[in-house]
Amino acid sequence: MAAKLASSRYGKGEVKVKKVTRHKDYHELKDISVSVYCEGDFTVAHLDGDNSAVLPTDTQRNTIYILAKDHPLDTIESFGLFLSAHLLKANTQFTSVQVEIAQNMWERIPVGGKQHPTTYRKAGEEQWLTAVHRTRDSVAVQSGIHDLEILKTTDSGFSDFKVDEFTTLKDTKDRVLNTVLKAMWPYKSVDVDFAKEREQIMTAVLDTFAGHQSLSVQHTLYAMGEAALAKTKSIDSISLEMPNVHNLLFDLSRFNRENNSEVFHVTSEPFGIITGVVSR
Amino acid sequence: MAAKLASSRYGKGEVKVKKVTRHKDYHELKDISVSVYCEGDFTVAHLDGDNSAVLPTDTQRNTIYILAKDHPLDTIESFGLFLSAHLLKANTQFTSVQVEIAQNMWERIPVGGKQHPTTYRKAGEEQWLTAVHRTRDSVAVQSGIHDLEILKTTDSGFSDFKVDEFTTLKDTKDRVLNTVLKAMWPYKSVDVDFAKEREQIMTAVLDTFAGHQSLSVQHTLYAMGEAALAKTKSIDSISLEMPNVHNLLFDLSRFNRENNSEVFHVTSEPFGIITGVVSR
Amino acid sequence: MAAKLASSRYGKGEVKVKKVTRHKDYHELKDISVSVYCEGDFTVAHLDGDNSAVLPTDTQRNTIYILAKDHPLDTIESFGLFLSAHLLKANTQFTSVQVEIAQNMWERIPVGGKQHPTTYRKAGEEQWLTAVHRTRDSVAVQSGIHDLEILKTTDSGFSDFKVDEFTTLKDTKDRVLNTVLKAMWPYKSVDVDFAKEREQIMTAVLDTFAGHQSLSVQHTLYAMGEAALAKTKSIDSISLEMPNVHNLLFDLSRFNRENNSEVFHVTSEPFGIITGVVSR
Amino acid sequence: MAAKLASSRYGKGEVKVKKVTRHKDYHELKDISVSVYCEGDFTVAHLDGDNSAVLPTDTQRNTIYILAKDHPLDTIESFGLFLSAHLLKANTQFTSVQVEIAQNMWERIPVGGKQHPTTYRKAGEEQWLTAVHRTRDSVAVQSGIHDLEILKTTDSGFSDFKVDEFTTLKDTKDRVLNTVLKAMWPYKSVDVDFAKEREQIMTAVLDTFAGHQSLSVQHTLYAMGEAALAKTKSIDSISLEMPNVHNLLFDLSRFNRENNSEVFHVTSEPFGIITGVVSR
Repeated sequence: MAAKLASSRYGKGEVKVKKVTRHKDYHELKDISVSVYCEGDFTVAHLDGDNSAVLPTDTQRNTIYILAKDHPLDTIESFGLFLSAHLLKANTQFTSVQVEIAQNMWERIPVGGKQHPTTYRKAGEEQWLTAVHRTRDSVAVQSGIHDLEILKTTDSGFSDFKVDEFTTLKDTKDRVLNTVLKAMWPYKSVDVDFAKEREQIMTAVLDTFAGHQSLSVQHTLYAMGEAALAKTKSIDSISLEMPNVHNLLFDLSRFNRENNSEVFHVTSEPFGIITGVVSR
Repeated sequence: MAAKLASSRYGKGEVKVKKVTRHKDYHELKDISVSVYCEGDFTVAHLDGDNSAVLPTDTQRNTIYILAKDHPLDTIESFGLFLSAHLLKANTQFTSVQVEIAQNMWERIPVGGKQHPTTYRKAGEEQWLTAVHRTRDSVAVQSGIHDLEILKTTDSGFSDFKVDEFTTLKDTKDRVLNTVLKAMWPYKSVDVDFAKEREQIMTAVLDTFAGHQSLSVQHTLYAMGEAALAKTKSIDSISLEMPNVHNLLFDLSRFNRENNSEVFHVTSEPFGIITGVVSR
Repeated sequence: MAAKLASSRYGKGEVKVKKVTRHKDYHELKDISVSVYCEGDFTVAHLDGDNSAVLPTDTQRNTIYILAKDHPLDTIESFGLFLSAHLLKANTQFTSVQVEIAQNMWERIPVGGKQHPTTYRKAGEEQWLTAVHRTRDSVAVQSGIHDLEILKTTDSGFSDFKVDEFTTLKDTKDRVLNTVLKAMWPYKSVDVDFAKEREQIMTAVLDTFAGHQSLSVQHTLYAMGEAALAKTKSIDSISLEMPNVHNLLFDLSRFNRENNSEVFHVTSEPFGIITGVVSR
Repeated sequence: MAAKLASSRYGKGEVKVKKVTRHKDYHELKDISVSVYCEGDFTVAHLDGDNSAVLPTDTQRNTIYILAKDHPLDTIESFGLFLSAHLLKANTQFTSVQVEIAQNMWERIPVGGKQHPTTYRKAGEEQWLTAVHRTRDSVAVQSGIHDLEILKTTDSGFSDFKVDEFTTLKDTKDRVLNTVLKAMWPYKSVDVDFAKEREQIMTAVLDTFAGHQSLSVQHTLYAMGEAALAKTKSIDSISLEMPNVHNLLFDLSRFNRENNSEVFHVTSEPFGIITGVVSR
């Protein structure tokens, strides 16, 4: 009946880094939030309070800023690879390191018809994501995005679903489809052009969302995943989360008015949960 | 020593409305949050629970959706005028009505090089604002924006400030200037082109932010307000809130590295508070 | 048509301070967030970038921590008085200083039937508030609370209200009354026992909320304010904000079940706005 | 290279339910948020838009409110068992159902020295959690808590850790230990007294947090898990997440003052991540 440490993980969460790279004709801004998770045998730390193998999370924070200086920060994936390699090499007591990075979107402000070289504005609520998992023998990168809110005003219905004694929903042939997309795709190799892959995958995903004749969120989710797989050979699967943000027709018939899919009320909770993994 | 009702106000907060207007070649999406505040003599409601003069806030909610059907929702200012006029006319017990509207930003997704006609994505965290205050004799409109995060990577310093025994800050000639802008400008008349005025004022404000040789946030705030007043005769004052979001140089000298205004850490709190009203 | 600075204010927002006072038999924990707003003639700072009269907000932050060491932090009101006096005395260029403090609630954990001397848990979402406004000639303190969520399961109705063409709400004699209270009360003098006054006023306010036969939120709001004024001569008015958080009966009749005020669904938006000031 | 559906899951998220049970001498209030996740073979829904096996999430929402009427809602675990059993029985197309419930804390307001029978206030930020996973052959319940912020003002140190070239942290023998606890414990059986088990486990966990001579967060986390396992035979493991919320000594030595572990500044980000699973 004695206790033991079954597993453990520790690190530093949400280290906020901004880096400005001063190019000749403009300043490049990167704005990221980095989390690090370290694994190894930390039994004596947990059982005896012996910290001799514990790299403080404060040192991990320092390391992130120092390596952000040493690295071009061109993509979050390449920085995740760089940071995880350093941490694993410098700490023989670690068996694996996971680095997770979220990148905030900024764009240069247009002034007089062209982008100002050194002035930015926040460009959206979405964040680009990566997760790099590195062990002594392996390294895996997955990339993604979250908090990307998208909406179709037409070409979306939901009908002929299962009906039971508790059903009150009516069939609809034309509704607003609104979701806050999260997508993650693991790369088959770490030797890819991460920026180009991201661009291609997201173009496939969003073009499909726009063009799809949607019979359900599930239906569109699958089509989006299928399109991503068709676009690149660098991934074999993609995971999609597409909560159904409910925009409900406001009943105007009570007030002698028609509502031809014009006026909607929105409820932040509850929401439909729709997730799926599409693979080859 | 007896008590009395010194003042009161009631209404409905954050009624979320989406409206889709189905134009021939594209669908227009408006996404707004409406709050209504009503004033009048509600003494008997408060003292005696006599609700005969109380228009339920639920009815106010219905009214917002019904009027959103009846109105083109071209600008939040014009809808605020329409809604406040209805509420005051239909309720002789009200002495004034204040309508506040926040509009969320959406943009059509580019597909194949041009904007898709019916598919949108959230376009930023900022919201456009209006506040319409209407009495039996008067109506006043102010417009504005908030949650617009902007940043300059250069042309910003802060030096030669007051120093006392508790000062530790050093002069800086080149720092990152980062703020989350709120601006509100009252119109001199309600007979203006609200869309055009907003465009002009925001262009003046942002162009100035971009081009200013900033000696302090206060310095830049004033220049932004001055530029807005110079751009249009429709306003006589503008109020600006520009909290100083601190991006601090990470001290790399401890680790044998220079930090030439490259790597910054960010603290969400505390922040500098800088506000001002610029007028003619 | 030239511009001028009509007004301005600056300071530091949300400086988070925890203070531990090590009494003989237990440790006292205070957890506060302090904001400071300074006024004066800052025209040259705004127009010319002349910072010679600008006490940096970073120095204000230092000052808050230093004075938190020097002061017992027994009440937020007394600390606000102390801090505002220091800032005004040390800065002849300021004409007024406003200090706003929010205090987080913590309670000691019970262990073995009594409070542990040095271990705490967060005790609620509400915050105690104070705002101290000091000029060269005057000082005024108001105190309050916000984010205090309270709920009555009975003794609350809403009926006989104004009905118009857009009304769909039905009379109810028994509903759940749920609000997130904000209250602020200005003291007539700064020479009061702030802890005792707060205790008395909040007891009056909450006892009244509990015992009231509510005919509307307005009705109960007034009674709560009246009770506070009856309890103490130290205040002449109290401002109350009581948004109506809607708990709506879920319609079970569609499913052959009665809902005798048992099962409610909750919507976070929209909400009723109910505010009032009760005075002598 | 063709695509397939590798996995999928759907349901309804954050259905907010309040239930009032009108006992003779007081009203009992339960406030829960329910999420449901359904699994099965939904290939034709995803690939072909065939919704015939899709129980709408709107029906799931109705079901939650209807079953909240039918069930005493004594514990979230028993309601999760009831709801998952219904959903699986009524939907032969589902292979498994996961029900996750979070319960908000309310307490009755004291009036005149005793608890008022029908008036409540929010009692804390923490939520009680359960997750019930049910398949055709099995059912598993785990319970837990999250967002419980706790703090020790003494008996906590961190020293003799690994030092490298990037280390700047100093050893400390006496610091504030502050965390926002999440704990989850799977039950070995569903035939337990969930209320009593929760009470026992949380008492063990919090008593240990209070009494522990902490050499690190890891050290205390393990002791807390060990104590939970020692307290009850109903569980064989417990998972604990204890982020290190940093309360940092403000350096007063620059200002001719000592800081004897009295005045701390707090940073919300970054934070230390400390997690572990303790098992038999």
